[in-house]
Amino acid sequence: MSRKDLEIARHSAFLSGLPEGVRARLLSRAHVRRLGRGVPVFLQGDEALYFQIVVEGWVKLYRLTRGGDEALIDVLGAGLCITDPRALDGARHALSCETCAECRIVLLDPGAVRACPEARAALADAVLRLRDGQMERMIRQLERLKLMSASQRLATFLLETGRFLGQPVEFILPYDKHLLAAHLGMKPESLSRAFGRLRAFGVTGAQKQVRISDVGALRAHCLQEAEVLAAA
Amino acid sequence: MSRKDLEIARHSAFLSGLPEGVRARLLSRAHVRRLGRGVPVFLQGDEALYFQIVVEGWVKLYRLTRGGDEALIDVLGAGLCITDPRALDGARHALSCETCAECRIVLLDPGAVRACPEARAALADAVLRLRDGQMERMIRQLERLKLMSASQRLATFLLETGRFLGQPVEFILPYDKHLLAAHLGMKPESLSRAFGRLRAFGVTGAQKQVRISDVGALRAHCLQEAEVLAAA
Repeated sequence: MSRKDLEIARHSAFLSGLPEGVRARLLSRAHVRRLGRGVPVFLQGDEALYFQIVVEGWVKLYRLTRGGDEALIDVLGAGLCITDPRALDGARHALSCETCAECRIVLLDPGAVRACPEARAALADAVLRLRDGQMERMIRQLERLKLMSASQRLATFLLETGRFLGQPVEFILPYDKHLLAAHLGMKPESLSRAFGRLRAFGVTGAQKQVRISDVGALRAHCLQEAEVLAAA
Repeated sequence: MSRKDLEIARHSAFLSGLPEGVRARLLSRAHVRRLGRGVPVFLQGDEALYFQIVVEGWVKLYRLTRGGDEALIDVLGAGLCITDPRALDGARHALSCETCAECRIVLLDPGAVRACPEARAALADAVLRLRDGQMERMIRQLERLKLMSASQRLATFLLETGRFLGQPVEFILPYDKHLLAAHLGMKPESLSRAFGRLRAFGVTGAQKQVRISDVGALRAHCLQEAEVLAAA
């Protein structure tokens, strides 16, 4: 594992809350998986054997409906743990996961701390925090899907993504627009219309390039009450 | 506590998975809260002191946005535990809760098992299952908001509610249409249009009365692929 990957994993929300000894023990047995784009990471129902942290690229968490459609639940980038928090107990994944870009993923074996009750307890706490974080991401998505218009959801996504990438004003969309539309719960043509509406708030760009000329105006648009309740 | 309330609580998903001794210990110190409609049960940020199980009526879980809007996250009826699963650790509620009908709620004090490590461990397991159940409800909501049209979401809700009430063909909507629209992530006028569309699939009724003349046809509508991806 490269020093860079090690540092990203060490600073991930999941590992950074652990006592140094436990973190070191987990990382000493970690290994990195390199995956191309569109490769399954795990499937719903698979046993969750490892904690998996994305250190480069993006993955999507999804579920296939009975009708065979893919319901996209979340898209996660570097520093985020994609594993079902029940990995500690050998549970099964509740969702499927696939890469949507070239990825490097760090695999941590919970067996590395199994023999030590103290480390195990610290890890169990970290798992609860991880679960809280995942629940919170879902609550926020539900809030947005229920209260925000398509263009507000897109604006929120662009502001968050710019911040996540450390490039709030100009950045490259991290994945394609088809996936982005599914993530935001809209049809590709609704996404195009939403981009069109955001021109009035200073959002320009071509292909996957995005430029936000006035971050404040865009943020204000996200909070605009007149637009609230425009879903569906 | 009446025998009926006791039975509903005992058969709730949360308590029914516990060993009889632990369940009895929790129920021996339980008490019932009777609340009118529109009464706060707890607020986001309150300490979660009890496990709370609805035995009569309906409550909504919501969050206020920065703009002051109410984002409705879930609506729960009898037999469901509304408490943040972290009550065991004296954590704070991640959401606010308010009654949307007259309610009876059973309060269980986790302190009843605090002195007994075995009971505490069994309760911790039940809490993990509770959390999984809550996570699963959110995943299903996300699936529907992202993949289903307004009329499919309404159809799914009607089928599930009829089943929940034990009256699959004819029932009274358990709460008002304004709340229902918010729960399904649509405007009240979109809800009216969705009811209009479902007439073609055998759904009739006036006010809060609902009649489903062909449950099979309605179920087929929920799975219809042509309508998928019509959100936003």
